[in-house]
Amino acid sequence: MPKISQKAIEMPSSPIRKLVPYATEAKKRGVHVLHLNIGQPDIKAPQVAIDAIKNLPTNDVAYTNSEGVSSYQSGLVNYYKNNNINLNVKDIMITTGGSEALVMVFNACFNDDDEILVPEPFYANYNGFARQTNINVVPITASIENDFALPPIADFEKKITPKTKAIMICNPSNPTGYLYSLKELEQLKEIVLKHDLFLIADEVYREFCYDGHTPISILELDGLKENAIVIDSVSKRYSMCGARIGAIVTRNNELISVLMKFAQARLCPPYFGQVAAEAALNTPKEYFEEVKAEYVARRNYLVEALNKIEGVYCPMPKGAFYAVVKLPVENADEFAKWLLEEFEYKGTTVMVAPASGFYSTPNHGMNEVRVAYVLKISELKRAVIALEEGLRAYKEYKNK
Amino acid sequence: MPKISQKAIEMPSSPIRKLVPYATEAKKRGVHVLHLNIGQPDIKAPQVAIDAIKNLPTNDVAYTNSEGVSSYQSGLVNYYKNNNINLNVKDIMITTGGSEALVMVFNACFNDDDEILVPEPFYANYNGFARQTNINVVPITASIENDFALPPIADFEKKITPKTKAIMICNPSNPTGYLYSLKELEQLKEIVLKHDLFLIADEVYREFCYDGHTPISILELDGLKENAIVIDSVSKRYSMCGARIGAIVTRNNELISVLMKFAQARLCPPYFGQVAAEAALNTPKEYFEEVKAEYVARRNYLVEALNKIEGVYCPMPKGAFYAVVKLPVENADEFAKWLLEEFEYKGTTVMVAPASGFYSTPNHGMNEVRVAYVLKISELKRAVIALEEGLRAYKEYKNK
Repeated sequence: MPKISQKAIEMPSSPIRKLVPYATEAKKRGVHVLHLNIGQPDIKAPQVAIDAIKNLPTNDVAYTNSEGVSSYQSGLVNYYKNNNINLNVKDIMITTGGSEALVMVFNACFNDDDEILVPEPFYANYNGFARQTNINVVPITASIENDFALPPIADFEKKITPKTKAIMICNPSNPTGYLYSLKELEQLKEIVLKHDLFLIADEVYREFCYDGHTPISILELDGLKENAIVIDSVSKRYSMCGARIGAIVTRNNELISVLMKFAQARLCPPYFGQVAAEAALNTPKEYFEEVKAEYVARRNYLVEALNKIEGVYCPMPKGAFYAVVKLPVENADEFAKWLLEEFEYKGTTVMVAPASGFYSTPNHGMNEVRVAYVLKISELKRAVIALEEGLRAYKEYKNK
Repeated sequence: MPKISQKAIEMPSSPIRKLVPYATEAKKRGVHVLHLNIGQPDIKAPQVAIDAIKNLPTNDVAYTNSEGVSSYQSGLVNYYKNNNINLNVKDIMITTGGSEALVMVFNACFNDDDEILVPEPFYANYNGFARQTNINVVPITASIENDFALPPIADFEKKITPKTKAIMICNPSNPTGYLYSLKELEQLKEIVLKHDLFLIADEVYREFCYDGHTPISILELDGLKENAIVIDSVSKRYSMCGARIGAIVTRNNELISVLMKFAQARLCPPYFGQVAAEAALNTPKEYFEEVKAEYVARRNYLVEALNKIEGVYCPMPKGAFYAVVKLPVENADEFAKWLLEEFEYKGTTVMVAPASGFYSTPNHGMNEVRVAYVLKISELKRAVIALEEGLRAYKEYKNK
């Protein structure tokens, strides 16, 4: 039979989804599995977006412009303006989710074997997108002891080679919930200008910043016209993960013009999703206030409860809806699997995402897991109890 | 400023869209442009599909399974069964249009610099997808004199090297409208088995076969379990180009399992589009009968009218809704541009797609254009008149 590609063999599996078969088995045994592993919010999409879909103006389901529906692009210009960012319509290219935005940017910016520096832990699929486009992610390790703040710039400098073409951050961060400060962003600006690099910021969690913190976009920094590339998405902002609508935002005209060739090859982003996303721009402010209040309550409950468990440490996230948590185990991959395969407490267990998949340095984050606080507090409570009991039982199991 | 990639520089522009700026200018001058250049049907999507969107069951716009909504996969198994093809749910992976299906297959099957043999002229974006995934399309030239039938198998044999990994066809063909016979497909089967190659068939125009011809899928051929990969899409079938829903269909289990890694990295195909596509499976038979009758009438009118013009030759397409037409000009690229820039007849001109963009052999198809019969007959009539007058005027212009 014909051989599959080397790229396919080397393509990493999703660390978030790889335990799914064990969860399925647990459910078959009648165990209730509480999902702390996924970033699928249980929040409803804004009614304005759903109404727009239900009131589709026409039966024409034609290709849209390759760069997206013009009126939606204009709407986004206005959205950014309200976020203190002045853009032109041509600076925004609508994509099929943030995922396609990343692949397009990687294709347009990087040659084979080029390197991008990324603070780790990072969103695990960056590895997959890098593998698909023949580039290498070079991790710069952030530490849980430092609450995952930007690693020292000297650590970036040390890793810069002639192959280095970009630095990429996720802000606020999936998986750590860390929110970069203006000072940290200025440091990144300095180093990308010094070495003539692109600065890519995945800002899809922009709306989810807590405790009065304001997110700062790299588009707000002066002097980065040619360097700054923002990856955006409606998936989390409006709880519309399934719409698959994202965007590339850059004032680099040359980049936009080559991106257009990739955009035209795949014809256009999804029409229905764009209808919903454009309408979602009119989501009332109260929607976000409610959603944020809910996430803050969940975060506060979860982080406090986790830190009360012996040997557990969870930094307080300032944004997004994830946290990376240190557990008193040697191998969180094994522990997470054990929770699904061997454990239950009063008919319940908990599923977490081992953090090792969010590091690209081998054997890093082995005692960490990512949790997402996308469950109601009542469910989070049950999940924390199951986790605490699980840790206790696992310790006994290991000492046997 | 940071440099864009070599890949981006080499990425071809869409031959279908590259004349668009000239058309825009013509429209600004008040000239009515009749579009024979695009494959955007003017047919409405089936009402059942639109109704499904308008009656969305929930406000949850969550990620679907990475391989697609299960009930839609099952629905497609049934669709294929009605087309005499027996499949399992796991043989079908839902994608973001046929475009993503092709990129995923190229990534999963081919190493850098691998070669795929493709009869030319072929769908121009194959070149772009190949460039994105670092593979090479090796064209096997079909000729208009032979109505674009499969080139002799000896021509394929001559081009097979250790790098050759697949043969790819589009059946019925965009841009030629050619429908491969069982005999031709059996020849392809023999050669792919002999050389252990994948056989990829883009069958998105399956429903559009005329004059009693029945399309034959490579999935109907015995012995190709590991080799056959079908690219499918709802874009043309239900006139839902904007839904961006396609599929990869293969009985090769290993391939499906590695495709899943690429599918999971990009999370899922669009949810709204899948809702519409699943509902569209219940499109009444009469819809297709009406649509086909309309296309046949358009095709018959257009092909007959074109062949009446002096020096023009248009083979009779058996499927899809395109034809490649030989014109009495030396350089159809120049002529097509001239039609938009310099010409009008009673306030009207016509836009065609130069066929050179559908060949990858340099300087092939220089006197050919692709036309799509996706306009009403009344419009086609005006387009043919404009083309005939254009050819006459262009001849005078060139002889000046």
